[in-house]
Order: sequence, then C-alpha cells, then structure tokens
Amino acid sequence: MSSFLIAPSILSADFARLGDDVAKVLSAGADVIHFDVMDNHYVPNLTFGPMVCQSLRDYGITAPIDVHLMVKPVDSLIPAFAKAGADIITFHPEASEHVDRTLQLIKDNGCKAGLVLNPATPLHCLDYVMDKLDVILLMSVNPGFGGQSFIPTTLDKLKAVKAKIEASGRDIRLQVDGGVKASNIAEIAQAGADMFVAGSAIFSQTDYKQAIDEMRAELAKVSG
Amino acid sequence: MSSFLIAPSILSADFARLGDDVAKVLSAGADVIHFDVMDNHYVPNLTFGPMVCQSLRDYGITAPIDVHLMVKPVDSLIPAFAKAGADIITFHPEASEHVDRTLQLIKDNGCKAGLVLNPATPLHCLDYVMDKLDVILLMSVNPGFGGQSFIPTTLDKLKAVKAKIEASGRDIRLQVDGGVKASNIAEIAQAGADMFVAGSAIFSQTDYKQAIDEMRAELAKVSG
Amino acid sequence: MSSFLIAPSILSADFARLGDDVAKVLSAGADVIHFDVMDNHYVPNLTFGPMVCQSLRDYGITAPIDVHLMVKPVDSLIPAFAKAGADIITFHPEASEHVDRTLQLIKDNGCKAGLVLNPATPLHCLDYVMDKLDVILLMSVNPGFGGQSFIPTTLDKLKAVKAKIEASGRDIRLQVDGGVKASNIAEIAQAGADMFVAGSAIFSQTDYKQAIDEMRAELAKVSG
Amino acid sequence: MSSFLIAPSILSADFARLGDDVAKVLSAGADVIHFDVMDNHYVPNLTFGPMVCQSLRDYGITAPIDVHLMVKPVDSLIPAFAKAGADIITFHPEASEHVDRTLQLIKDNGCKAGLVLNPATPLHCLDYVMDKLDVILLMSVNPGFGGQSFIPTTLDKLKAVKAKIEASGRDIRLQVDGGVKASNIAEIAQAGADMFVAGSAIFSQTDYKQAIDEMRAELAKVSG
Amino acid sequence: MSSFLIAPSILSADFARLGDDVAKVLSAGADVIHFDVMDNHYVPNLTFGPMVCQSLRDYGITAPIDVHLMVKPVDSLIPAFAKAGADIITFHPEASEHVDRTLQLIKDNGCKAGLVLNPATPLHCLDYVMDKLDVILLMSVNPGFGGQSFIPTTLDKLKAVKAKIEASGRDIRLQVDGGVKASNIAEIAQAGADMFVAGSAIFSQTDYKQAIDEMRAELAKVSG
Amino acid sequence: MSSFLIAPSILSADFARLGDDVAKVLSAGADVIHFDVMDNHYVPNLTFGPMVCQSLRDYGITAPIDVHLMVKPVDSLIPAFAKAGADIITFHPEASEHVDRTLQLIKDNGCKAGLVLNPATPLHCLDYVMDKLDVILLMSVNPGFGGQSFIPTTLDKLKAVKAKIEASGRDIRLQVDGGVKASNIAEIAQAGADMFVAGSAIFSQTDYKQAIDEMRAELAKVSG
Repeated sequence: MSSFLIAPSILSADFARLGDDVAKVLSAGADVIHFDVMDNHYVPNLTFGPMVCQSLRDYGITAPIDVHLMVKPVDSLIPAFAKAGADIITFHPEASEHVDRTLQLIKDNGCKAGLVLNPATPLHCLDYVMDKLDVILLMSVNPGFGGQSFIPTTLDKLKAVKAKIEASGRDIRLQVDGGVKASNIAEIAQAGADMFVAGSAIFSQTDYKQAIDEMRAELAKVSG
Repeated sequence: MSSFLIAPSILSADFARLGDDVAKVLSAGADVIHFDVMDNHYVPNLTFGPMVCQSLRDYGITAPIDVHLMVKPVDSLIPAFAKAGADIITFHPEASEHVDRTLQLIKDNGCKAGLVLNPATPLHCLDYVMDKLDVILLMSVNPGFGGQSFIPTTLDKLKAVKAKIEASGRDIRLQVDGGVKASNIAEIAQAGADMFVAGSAIFSQTDYKQAIDEMRAELAKVSG
Repeated sequence: MSSFLIAPSILSADFARLGDDVAKVLSAGADVIHFDVMDNHYVPNLTFGPMVCQSLRDYGITAPIDVHLMVKPVDSLIPAFAKAGADIITFHPEASEHVDRTLQLIKDNGCKAGLVLNPATPLHCLDYVMDKLDVILLMSVNPGFGGQSFIPTTLDKLKAVKAKIEASGRDIRLQVDGGVKASNIAEIAQAGADMFVAGSAIFSQTDYKQAIDEMRAELAKVSG
Repeated sequence: MSSFLIAPSILSADFARLGDDVAKVLSAGADVIHFDVMDNHYVPNLTFGPMVCQSLRDYGITAPIDVHLMVKPVDSLIPAFAKAGADIITFHPEASEHVDRTLQLIKDNGCKAGLVLNPATPLHCLDYVMDKLDVILLMSVNPGFGGQSFIPTTLDKLKAVKAKIEASGRDIRLQVDGGVKASNIAEIAQAGADMFVAGSAIFSQTDYKQAIDEMRAELAKVSG
Repeated sequence: MSSFLIAPSILSADFARLGDDVAKVLSAGADVIHFDVMDNHYVPNLTFGPMVCQSLRDYGITAPIDVHLMVKPVDSLIPAFAKAGADIITFHPEASEHVDRTLQLIKDNGCKAGLVLNPATPLHCLDYVMDKLDVILLMSVNPGFGGQSFIPTTLDKLKAVKAKIEASGRDIRLQVDGGVKASNIAEIAQAGADMFVAGSAIFSQTDYKQAIDEMRAELAKVSG
Repeated sequence: MSSFLIAPSILSADFARLGDDVAKVLSAGADVIHFDVMDNHYVPNLTFGPMVCQSLRDYGITAPIDVHLMVKPVDSLIPAFAKAGADIITFHPEASEHVDRTLQLIKDNGCKAGLVLNPATPLHCLDYVMDKLDVILLMSVNPGFGGQSFIPTTLDKLKAVKAKIEASGRDIRLQVDGGVKASNIAEIAQAGADMFVAGSAIFSQTDYKQAIDEMRAELAKVSG
C-alpha cells in the first residue's frame, strides 16, 4: 500500500476539455492535481490562474489541487487560489522578500505550504523554515522552459533534502517535478521523493491508467 | 445586414468545458471569441495564456480569436499567441515603450493589430499610429477589476474616436468592452462602436442564442 | 469673503513637535494641512506615511488634511491614509496604470480625489476624468527635489486648466504647490489658482499669522 | 552593571509629540533610539525618513539613533540618514545587490554598520562580511506586518549567530526585534542577544520607566 | 550657406579604430558626432557609455558630441556624460518621471538639452517644456531595433513639430534619426528637419566625403 | 611553463584605439582579453556591449575573449555576445532567477560558462552547479565602483573555493578580479587563483610587456 503520490500536471492536459480530462486522469489512479501557474515574469510563459482552478471545483473535482506558483511577487495570488479551491500552495523563495510571512499567509488561508527549489538553488534557504513546511518541491528541470529532461544531479539533492527532513522529525512531503517517467521514477523514489509530478508522461499517453500503473509498478519495487 | 460584431469574452465561460462552451456560443451567433489575457502585473489578476488559445484551435474552433493583452511588458507574448491561433491582438499603449514597434510586431506575425484605451487614457496616443491600426478598443470599465458597470462618459469618447477614424479614411474597427448588454448596446452603437465584447451578459444566460439575438435586435434599430 | 484656501505643507514643520506646530499654524489662519508623502521611488526622498497622519488626528487636529502622494505605485496607500484621517488624496497620473480606478478607489474610501501634474505633464491626462476630480494640483516646482523656485510658465498652465475646469461646469479646486509666497501669490491667484500650498514661506517665519495674513492681504487684491 | 542595550522603537511613539516622547523614554532609561524606516516597497508600509531623524537632533536628543532600513534599494538613503544624525545603520542583504559595498558606504559616512536577517533568511549571508559588521539584527517577526508575536525558533537562530560572532573574535552587537517584552527578554538574552528593540512593550505603557526597569530586572537574572 | 547639420552616428563606426574613424568622418565634413547610448532596458541592446565618449576627447576630437540616451532611468548618466565631454544630451520623455527636472539637470551640467520622440509618441509631451529645449529629435525608426527603413508618416510629424517650434519663437534644432540617406534627405529637410543623423548611409560607404557631399548637395536644393 | 592566465581588462584600455591597444597587450604576453560589461542597472555604470566585442574580431583579434556580464537580467545578452565572438561568459547568480538555465544557455551558444561571486556572496550558490561551471570568478573589489583596492579576505575565500573545486574533481578555472598587481599576485595565486584580471596595473603602464613579465615572474615563484 502506497505512500507515494502521483500528481499529473495539467500543463499537459487538454484545456478545451479540462474537466473531463482531469476526471479521467483521476479515475485512472492519480492522487493529486498539479497546477503550474506561470505569470510571464518569474518564468517566460503565461499559463492560467485562479479562475481555472475554480472551474474544476465547480465541475465537481474533489481531489486535492496542488498549486505551484511560478510567479513573482507571490502574495496577492495566495488568497485567490485558496478561495478557488487549492489545497497545497508552493512558491519559490527567490520570488518573495518575506518567505516566512508568505508561508504563514498560505496557512492562514487554510492550505498546506511548501517551497520550491530550482535546480541551482542551494538548500540553505530551508534552514529556518522547516517547521512551517508541508511540502518541499525540487525542480529537476528549469521551470517555464520547454523540452528539458531530468537533471541527474537532482538525485543527490533529493538525498540531501530527505536527510534534512528526517533530521527535522517532521512530516514533510518531498516532491519532484521535471522529466519524471516510468523509466526513472524508481531511482527518484529511492533517492527520497514521495510525490511525483508528471505531465506529458501521463497526458500524452492514450491510456492514462496504463501510464500511471506502470509508474506504480516501478514504485512498488522501491517500497517493496 | 449587420456589420456589427458580437465578441463574447471567455472570461465568463466555463473553463472546465471550454471547447464546448465556445462552440455553443458560436453556434448561438457570436462572431468572434474575445480572449482576456491578464498577467497579475499590468492588472491585478492572472487569467490564461497561449496554450488555452491553442487548445481551442486543436478542439476545432475556427472563428476569429481576438486577444486582448492586459500584460506588461507585451512583446514576448505576441509570437506565442500568433502561433497559438490568434487573429487579432490588442494591447495598452502604456504597457509598451515602443508602441509603433509592437504594432509592427503583431502585423509581422500575421495578425490584425489594435490599441486599447483605459477609461482615463486620452486619445492623443492614437495621433501617429492610425495607419497601423485595425482595431481600437475602448474600455468602458477598468480592466482587471470585477463588478463594474458601464462608465457613461465612454459614449462621448466613442464619438470622438469615431470621428478620428473617419478623418483617417481607414477601415478601423471600434470595439467596446465593459458592462455591455442588450439594454445599452444600441446607444453604444449609436455612439460609434461596431464590435461589442460581452461576458456575463451572454455566458451567464441559460440561452446564449436568446441573449445574442436580443443584442442583435437592439443593434438592428441602430443600423435600420 | 475669501474662497481662497491656504494649505501649509508640513514638510517644513517641526517634526519633533508636530502636533503643536500644526495647531499653531491652524490658529494662525491656515485652512488645510498639506501632507507631502514621498516613498524614495517616485521621487528621491522618503518623508512620512499614514501613522504620522493618524497621530495628528489623535492629537486633536480637526482641520482638513490634504494628502499629496508622491509615490509609485499608489493604490495600497489610499485605504491606509483614508483610515488615518485624510480628507483629500491626490496622486500623479504617471504613477498609476489605472487612473480612473485609482480616483474611484479614493472616493470609495470617503475622500475627495485629485490629480497632480508635474511641470512638464501636458493637460490631456485630464480629458476623460474631469467628472471624477475634486482637485487639480499643478506643481510649480519639480516634486522631491529641494531648493527650487516657482516656474514662471506655471501661470499660463494655470490659466489653461482654469479654462478646462470652467468648461466642465464642475466645482474643482485648482491648487498650486512650489515656491508660493506673499510676493507672487496674487498673480498665481489671478491665473486661476484658489488653493495655495506653502511650506517654508510660512513655517520658516517667526510669526505664522503674519505670514498668512500677508498672503491673504495679497489675495484680497485679487478677489476684490 | 549592564552591557545590555534597550532600544525603544519610535514606531510606537506619539508622532505628534515625538521630541517629548523620545526624551521621556530616554530619561526612563532607554539606551538607544530605534528608527524603523519603511518605504512601501521592501515592506508594505511607509513610515518616516531622514527629516524626522534630523528633527530629533534639532530638538536636542543626543542619544544614539539606530536606523533600521526596511527599504529597497538601500544606498541613496545612507548619506541622507548619516547627515540627519544616525549613529548605526542596518539593512537587509536581500535589498542590496552589493552588500559589501553598502556596508562600506555606511562606514564611509561615519556610522556603525549592520545586517538584518528576516526570520527565514539563512546565516550564510554573514560568511564573508563578519569583519565589516558592528551589529547583526535578527528579526523575530516579519518586518512591516502588524500584530505578530515573537517567533520561537529565533532562540536557536540567536545561539547560532552568537557562536558565529564568538568564532570571529570581533565585537559585534546581537540585536533582536519583534515581540520582545519583559516576560521573554531573559530567555532571549540567554540565547545570545545583547540589544533589544521594543515598541509597544514600552510606549504603550503608562510608565515607561517601570516597563524598562522590568526588562532590566529580567536581564539582571541573565547577567547575574 | 548651410544651417543644416550632418551628424554621423558612431553606431556604424569601426569600434576597433574609433578615434581614427571619427576623425575621418569629421574631416569628410560631418558637423556633429551622434552617440547612441543603449542600456538593454529601455531598448533591447547595449552599446557604450561615458568612457567611450571620454576616449574620443582624449584622442583629440573637438567637434560637438550629441548624446542620445536610449536608457531608463536617465538622470545618473547625465553628469557622467557631461564630464566625459558631451555637448548635447537628449532623452525620451517616457524614460523619466520628472522631465522638467531632467532637462534642467542637463543644463546645470553645461550641456544643451533635448527630447526624443518615438514614432508613436504624440506631440503633447512638448507642450510645457518648449522653453527648456535646444533640440527635438524625431525618431523615424524604432530605436534599438535593427534593419528598419524611414517611416513615411515622420514627414507630417516633422511639419507639426516645426510649426510648434516656430510658434514658440525659440531657436530649437529639429533633428531626425533613422533611415536618413541622400535619396530622402531633401524631403526630410523640406518637412522641417535641420539636423540629420545618419549611420550606415555614411560609415558603410568607402568614401565618407562623397556620402556627405551628396547629402549636402541634396540639402542645397532645399535651402536654395 | 605556466598554467596561469593573465587577462587584461579592456576597461582600462584606450577606446579610441581599441584594436591597436588590445593587439599590443596580447603581443606583450596577455593570454585572454577580459570584457567588463555594465548596464547601469546591476552596477552603477554603463560600459560597452556586443558590437565592441565584434569590432575586435573584425579587427583580427583571435585571442580568447572572456565576457563578464555585470548586467541584470542576463539571458538576452548571451546569444548576442556569443555571436560577437565571446569564448567565455560569466554572470552573477543574483542577476538571474534561473541560474542553471542561464549556464546551459551559455553552453548551448558554444561558450564556456562561469559564475561571479561578489565580495559578500557566500559560496553556497555553487553547491548544485559545479558540474556546469568552467570558471569561477571571485570579485576582490565591488564591481562597478571605481578606486578600490584588493579586499584581503578574498584570500581565504579563494582557498575555500579552491577546495570546493578540488572536491568536485572537475577542471574549473579560478579567476580573481580587482586590485590585482605584481605586488600581490603571488599570494593570490598561492591561495588558489589561476586566472588574473588586471586593468590599470597593465594598461596604465608605459611598457605592457614589462608589467606582464613582472606578474609572470611573481607567479613563477608560486608555481616553481
């Protein structure tokens, strides 16, 4: 029985039929819906905002929604996404002058809070906020740029963060995003990750269930 | 026979079923799909970007898509939206240091180009670009803020812009956005507008066709 | 009987004894207290914010407080100053992307609203907001820089704005700020101004009443 | 005999009677006057600038003035505050691209220099500047936001910074700001702090001397 | 006898032999050296700063140097260029919040001052600064972007500015920059321009003198 | 025979005769040409951009050109400098939100990539990018400000970086810039540096060869 979470990124979903596509991926076994919010300032692309999140709730989606803010500044979007149905909100520490305050703001709005580390971001930004974190997301590609594959040094970084989490004694999810697929998910889990964002690896497949089942099968080897 | 264009704003559409909702409003008689792009910098909200536009083309929508960029800066999104299927791209002159260049960039990407004037923006920004404009959009509410009604002084501003268009001898659409509905569309058309953005006035109705027909009936009084 | 308002700028007051100094200038005949708010971004100086305004209300000052925002962006300070006791709030159109919205925000917070024009700012920014203005302030020096004297071309600009106000048929104060003193106040009033900001011309005098009386005597020649 | 410094923050003083209030708190036993400068950009509030500092010197205040710059960018205000009578100037490393240069600029203007660490800021920003620091200020609340209480993890952070100071062999004050009061000042001192900013804990009391004396009594237990 | 000034833009000169190339173009008959300063913020390119200007003075160039600042913000570079030998400094009104102040700063540094209007910039920005201008520069291409040709509507704009200059009764140079060459210089002069920036039209020719002589011959037809 | 590289900074060269001056310093024994690019945003000065680099290639300079970007943002200048002939491109991690991506962009453009650390910048920014670095540049003065001498604590920082490089097992140049001269170059090399930027220490001398030879003689003592 799995403590691993599969979080399909709707960045690769069909936006003309988003409700159906999300429902389909959930019934195929996905645990969480991952929401990649880009503002064309923190990253060079513009994706979607709170109203799209709200439309999924109105459609009847009840699965947890995990909002990854690739925006700068961050604070004004937090109450908007919380109100639109978000369960988890994560952001990049470089995008807020007042990281402790922003984490608190997420919690005050009733959501779980997390930080996202870019591939080059060192771990020290975690030193004095471990007690406020529910999730740590390591980017294994550079956010906002297309066509990249999993950066291999992420594996060592996952191990270092995992050690930091264990040292804290707290229950913090370790999420990874970028180039995750069935063929590498086991070694990523081995390195410490327990929440896996996957975009095209799921949505570009004809059979979502088969794609997710393959990932689960790989993960089973790790947890086994 | 009408030269008036009705352009429903998808800001009020159902994002969980966007393809269907857009197809439905088109078969109800809409002429153009209006795309309100907000980046949480030029206006205090984040809506949707090029990938949502692309998804409508992939779905099979062939109607003209009219992209209103409420973003700053503007230029990087222009090729992205053109590639994603936009037909018309408009922006706010305050959001580009090089307005003439941005208009040219839109045309170089194969789209029709326009400027958008906020309620307080004076008309002089049009003085030296009339020969590059296909559309002028007057905001009759403040963009990016909810719950506003049509600003009455827009009627005089429409007349002044209409006169400027006629003096130019060019074929420029005069579009209006904000608080347009069946009960005021006739006097807005009388003042010179010939392209009408409407959001909740259409999408919040049970019967889109009836909503559009009512607008057309009002417009018929003007053109008649 | 005078419709001219004298508005001492507390920029020149004694900040260690502000309550007393403001009370003294009011009992010397001042009509309004002028508050020069600078944020070290829109202008190269940092002065004081809402808490100083609040402290005057707590001290017992009941005269109108006229807040001139030399800040960018503008909107977040409006509710703060309204709550702290401001009666009038003015700002520079260059400092807000959404001038109509900012004017409305001031009114929604229960204050009178105005625009401030820098020496080089043309008048066209007033074209579509006259119906929302209670005050127009012409800067007769450049804001935020010290040691300047009254720019003479302001007189013609005052006349042009006065004509615009009269054409509007609305009751709009025409305020002037920068280098105003007893020796030039009459010709400034002649040009159309009816509200006069004066800093060191009052606060640097030993006898505030005498300084204000001299101004009133000059103004009497105009109104007479 | 105390090496502990009590630094009342004038953020909580009476701005209508600032000279008197500051003189009163000094005669009640305060060691240093703490000046919280906010520019509405680095933090969401605007407080006061150099001219208020100057007014205290003109009033006759001779106690050290400790200026905490919650502004971004930093450099232009340093000569202004030095000229206005500041003795110590501290700033946030995130607010300057050139931290070493800014520290040097403070010293070149004849003041003591320090860095301020937000609750989430890691200690590594101190690694290569210890030889230029006279003060390190740890924020025990998030700057610029009201109504917060002392963040408990600050105690461990104080200990870590104290160790870093001792390892450097240099004479660096360790200051703490946010939620400090008589009931927690002893454990804060125990953790390594030797300079205590207190705002409402002093200024909201009827008897400033009693408030400060209580703090000193608590501190005496530590030093005893 | 010519009152027309030819101002070669060093943007097209040989930067590895700048002193020689500039001396050569001057002895070929150029009147003024035009300096295109770009900062990769106001325009998307970075060219050269004050030290390159200084190197020309050190080399022995004594002709007037006309610095066109395509930078934002503007003010800090003005004293630097004045000290480095500039005679004329022009800037874009959109790039300074305090246009009157910036013009005054140029004059206070001993240089002639001017404004530059982009192709889309309306003329109203000139309304209240005519008495401070020595030069008005109309861009006939968009600054900072390569490979453009002369925008034809510039001719009407030149006429409108020329009328404004004549109405002012002041001695203000009317400069044009972008796509100027022997084949169109006459009609540009006819429209009112009296100072002509030319880059590749001169520097890309083998014989600078011949290129300049051809321009002068064309101009002679106008003045004749 | 030396693995030490001498890299004269053209910031101190004669810009009116740049080709000749660069050729001269290369024939005097310099290994690499160092290009200090400043944009008046990341540092308070504007120097020169890609076209000056290109002019050296057109002149016939074939030595490696090492471009140090003191600009923010960074990315748009990378393809421009690569195309203009750069061999190495380095930037400050504070100037890019996406450091890993920017390093990759440099490599994708065919250049060697490096990071530059300001005097106060801690080493942790290197933790997760060592595998992408060809050069690490330590600033031993603050970039963009004149008249500074070598900051002595740079020696310890060099040792720490050298250890980090050795631990990585990779071949990474350790470069130092600021106040380097014959009298201190040996101890700087001793601390781990192997690439030395020198500006006025070379270009202000009458005999470049003698200046470089003196440095080499000092370095020989280290390598000997």
